[in-house]
Order: sequence, then C-alpha cells, then structure tokens
Amino acid sequence: MTDPTQNTRILLASRPHGEPTSDNFTIEAVPIPVPAEGEVLLRTIYLSLDPYMRGRMSAAKSYAAPVEVGTVMQGGTVAEVIESRDASLQVGDVVLSFTGWQSYGVAAAKHVRKLDPTLAPISTAVGVLGMPGFTAYAGLLEIGRPQPGETVVVAAAAGPVGSAVGQIARIKGARAVGIAGGPDKVAWLEELGFDVALDHRSPTFGDDLKAAVPDGIDVYFENVGGHVWDTVLPHLNTYARVPLCGLVAHYNETELPPGPDRSSRLMTSILTKSLTIRGFIQTEFVKTHYTAFQEDAAEWLRDGTLRHREDVVKGLENAPEAFAGLLKGTSFGKLLVQVGDDPTRTS
Amino acid sequence: MTDPTQNTRILLASRPHGEPTSDNFTIEAVPIPVPAEGEVLLRTIYLSLDPYMRGRMSAAKSYAAPVEVGTVMQGGTVAEVIESRDASLQVGDVVLSFTGWQSYGVAAAKHVRKLDPTLAPISTAVGVLGMPGFTAYAGLLEIGRPQPGETVVVAAAAGPVGSAVGQIARIKGARAVGIAGGPDKVAWLEELGFDVALDHRSPTFGDDLKAAVPDGIDVYFENVGGHVWDTVLPHLNTYARVPLCGLVAHYNETELPPGPDRSSRLMTSILTKSLTIRGFIQTEFVKTHYTAFQEDAAEWLRDGTLRHREDVVKGLENAPEAFAGLLKGTSFGKLLVQVGDDPTRTS
Repeated sequence: MTDPTQNTRILLASRPHGEPTSDNFTIEAVPIPVPAEGEVLLRTIYLSLDPYMRGRMSAAKSYAAPVEVGTVMQGGTVAEVIESRDASLQVGDVVLSFTGWQSYGVAAAKHVRKLDPTLAPISTAVGVLGMPGFTAYAGLLEIGRPQPGETVVVAAAAGPVGSAVGQIARIKGARAVGIAGGPDKVAWLEELGFDVALDHRSPTFGDDLKAAVPDGIDVYFENVGGHVWDTVLPHLNTYARVPLCGLVAHYNETELPPGPDRSSRLMTSILTKSLTIRGFIQTEFVKTHYTAFQEDAAEWLRDGTLRHREDVVKGLENAPEAFAGLLKGTSFGKLLVQVGDDPTRTS
Repeated sequence: MTDPTQNTRILLASRPHGEPTSDNFTIEAVPIPVPAEGEVLLRTIYLSLDPYMRGRMSAAKSYAAPVEVGTVMQGGTVAEVIESRDASLQVGDVVLSFTGWQSYGVAAAKHVRKLDPTLAPISTAVGVLGMPGFTAYAGLLEIGRPQPGETVVVAAAAGPVGSAVGQIARIKGARAVGIAGGPDKVAWLEELGFDVALDHRSPTFGDDLKAAVPDGIDVYFENVGGHVWDTVLPHLNTYARVPLCGLVAHYNETELPPGPDRSSRLMTSILTKSLTIRGFIQTEFVKTHYTAFQEDAAEWLRDGTLRHREDVVKGLENAPEAFAGLLKGTSFGKLLVQVGDDPTRTS
C-alpha cells in the first residue's frame, strides 16, 4: 500500500485518445494536506471506479466539467476522519466523500455524509446503496416505469447499475432479462433471479435475445450502446421506454464509425414505435427520490431481495489499470480500489 | 370535377421508390356504392392530404397497416350524407369520415362524426380542429410541456401542425421560433405572432437559428428531420423535450445516407444533455385529451389567438400531384383537395 506519511495521489497527466493508458496518469507523493476550519482530513479506504470518469478525462462538453490536466482524478470515496475541524464529525467517523484518486483528502464537513457501519458494509455507500444503486432505482422507476408482467432488458447487467436494475424490475413484478459479457457473469445473473441472462459475446446472441423476449421489450435500460443496442432496438415494443445513463461501448471512440449514417433510421424507429428515449444523470432525481431509494434499498438488502457483488482491487497504484479494464468489461460487480485499511472489517 | 353519377376513386397502383409519382396511382370510375343497414352513403366534399400517407404507401412496418396495392388510398374526409340507413344521421348532414381518395364512400354511421357547420368551417375538422391541430396540442402540451419563458422551436411551422404548435406555445407563455421554407411562409409566421420565423433554405440558416435562441431550446417539436434537425440539435438545452411526430425529410429516402454513422453521436447527445425524445401518434392521446383539445381550440379559434390557413386544390384528379408537393414543401397551410361542392359555403 501507499506510504502512510505522505499523500499519494494520481493526477490526469494527459487526455486519452481512445483507451486510457498508464501514460494518461501520473502518480506522485506530496505532503498530507491540512484541514481548515469547518473541514476534515480524510484517509481514503475505498475509491469507487465508475465509467463516467472516462467522460471527465475528455475535454468534450458534457454534463460535468472535465478534470483539468495536472489535477487529481475525481471520484467518490469512503474514508475515515483522522482530523476534524468541525463539530459535526469526530475522528474515527467513516464518511462518504468525493476526494478522488488519493490516499488522503480534505473536505468541508458539510460536503461529506457520515456512514453507519452497523447498518451495511461501508463500501456499499459507493455501490448498491450509493450512486450506482440510485441510478438504477431512479432511472428504472421514474423513466422506465415497468408494469407487472412487462419485459425489462438491461445491458452491463453484472455491473452495479445493471444488476440492481434487473432485481428491482423483478421486485416490481416485471420480467428481467440481463445481458452481460461471459459465462461467469451470466451464471451470476441467473443466481440473482434474472428470468433470462444472455452473453452478448455469444455468436448466437441475436437469436438468444429474440427467444428471450417473446412479447418484445417494454423497458430497455441502456448504459452500453454499440452492438447490444443494435440488437435490442428491433425488439422494442410500441411505447417502450429507454432510460439512457451510459454508453460505455462508445467512450473510447476516437472518430465516428463508418457509414451508412443510421441516425435517421434511429429517429424513424422512435417515431414509428412511439418510443421514449430519455438521457439522465442520477443527480437530477436526488431531491425527489433519494430518501425513498435509501429506505427501499436498505430494506431490500436486509431481506435479501437485492444482492450485489464487489470487485475489490488492492492498492491505489492499480487504479489506472483497473479503470481501463472497467471500460473493457473485465471487472465483475462494483469495482472498488481499496486504498487503505478498512477498520470496520475484522478479517 | 368528377362525374356525379359515378364514384371516381384513386387507387394505389404500386409502391413508390422514392418520391411518389403519377405512376403510383390509378384513377378509375366505378358505380356509386350502396349502403347497408347502419351505414350511410357519403359524398366527399374535402379530402385531407397529410404526410403520414407516404408511410401507408410503403410496405415497411409502421404504426398502421399499409394500404394494399390495388385498393383506394386512405384519408380523412369531410362529406355530406346523401343516403342514410341509420337513424342517427340524416340526408344533408355533414360528417368527418375516413372514406379516402374517392368522390363517394360508404361508412358505418358509428364511424363518422357529425359536424356543426355553424360552429366553424367544415374543412377545419381535418385541420386546425382535427387531427393536425390535435397532434400539435397533445404533442406540445403532453410531451413538450413548455413552461412560461421557455423557448419552443418548431419545424414545418407553416403547416397545419407546426403553425398550431407555435401559437399554442405562445398561448402558454413560451417563446415560439418557427422554421419554414421560403419568405412567404416566414412572413405569415410573423403575422401569426411567432417571436422569430426562420427560412431553413437561407444560406445563413445556422447563424439565424443560433441568434434566435440565445437561451437555447427547451422544446423542439420535430416533424421534419434532415438538416433542420441537425441544425437544431446542438442548441438543445439540458432536459430539452423533443416530441417527434413526423420525419418528412426522410419519407422518400430509398437508402440510408452515406457515413459516417452518426447514430451513436445522437445517443451521446441524448445522454449528456438529459434529453427526452418521444415519438408519438395523436391517437395515443385521444381518450385522455381530445375533449379538452376541442374546447380549447374552439375557444382560441373564436377569440383569434389560434389562426390557420388552408391550401385548397380543386379536383380529386389533382390529389396525386398535390400530395407529391406536400412532401416537397410546396403546399402552404393545411392541404385539402376539394372533391365536391361545399354546401355550407355560399360564395
């Protein structure tokens, strides 16, 4: 692990052209920062790695400002308070924060959220009980609006968003069809109770999907794009809803694919099938739905109807490689980097 | 006009490849049909020509079954009852019907709607008070949901749908920007009270649109596609809504345009701007919104806040050419074919 007397941090060294490589990152050790009044000094336990970070590495306009070259990569973290200059937090408290790819960070106390380690493992605050779980909950229920008996299809179904989407769809009485890459992921989705789990790498994927949705698709939760979307689109029913929160298959694209230009055909499909395609970022729904999510998800987690899986990589220095793998689909479950010891785990 | 002792009708002779031509239609005269019990014999006064008819001429799967080759072209009509075998309708009644491209037709009395010629000109039943007006009303208010002060942009704004969209947007307190082809149409939109009217054929159209939407676009009512859509897309605001009810620019396409393939870029725009793109056909909203539409539209028409314009072509035999022009944008206002005398007009 990292030198505990210094702050090890990973900076964006350059903007990637295509897949991010180790050249796009710099690792360095600097003095541990000092908190000001109202702030806390945090020791990072877990760093969350998420596909949206690829967007922040690019200068292209998006819903959030890019990470500037030469600054610390952004990211959600679970951290321990090791010095507090705010009455609301004590040394030893574990918090959800956004201190990024570094072993220590300073944050305003009002910008972190204290976690209760007795309620759920602290790492779930960046997974099934955090942003990914909430993305699934809000997007599926507010945009997808699955009705009992309808068919919900979700891509990247073994990821933290997709696995929650399928399980919540089933909780709401819909059929859940999960699409993932590789037999291990497919087996896990079946274990979770997905009605059907499909491997998009299979040469028979097109036929498999057709057979899996005899009544068509009412909700397609889209976070991938690419050939999965192309395969799904013809099976969407009239009035189908497509919550769209990610396009991982396209994040590393350096130029548009060759023609023909299918964009007018996509619009024609939306027209003739009365489809709803709705992009969203979970922050849109925080004010209106976060409290309900926390109550529902905590209950489902307790009663076992909502399960999750973590893929924990040890050591901050391994974050760049793990992140590159996330974009290629090599991680399995919620990808976390364990940056420092977890005081809540006795193992 | 047509021989009043026979039923003149226009059949689909063949499916068009690209633009419909006269070869795709056959005109013939057959005996006037005889109504059965519960039916009425109708004399066509006005035939409505609408872009959706291009879709019915093709075999491609859409929201409605295609017109079969060798059968009468479908279409909404305003007609006079000349023989009635149902107690609900009398000879001389004027009705809204769907008897298609022919001078006489038989319909079940329960499938036509009696019109009151004292309330509004009967031709409005297929225009501002009919399907096009309702398409504008339902799509704008239910999907577009413009808020006071927001910017609504509509294409084909001099058509019966677009002109209603812009005027209803203004009634609801939004800014209305209309896009049409040619200076006459632009002048009429300004007369109607659109905040800005733009000519998409102008070489400065891109700059004109940019200048017309300093706060971006919150609602784009889409019924065209093509280069207008390409120009609009970059100006859509986060959370913009795109009700999509037509793609006239693409109806005559015989193959996909050359590359690159911009479909993933379209999806990326939907994602990064949290857009809603929603295809619809007005029939979806009939049960829930038609009564409110009729009340609102009749009131707006009476008080002059909702104006409309008709482009009346005389003679059923001219329907094919008029329809081809509709797809090319040569009509101006609601396109009607006057098939027979209008007994409610004294001129």
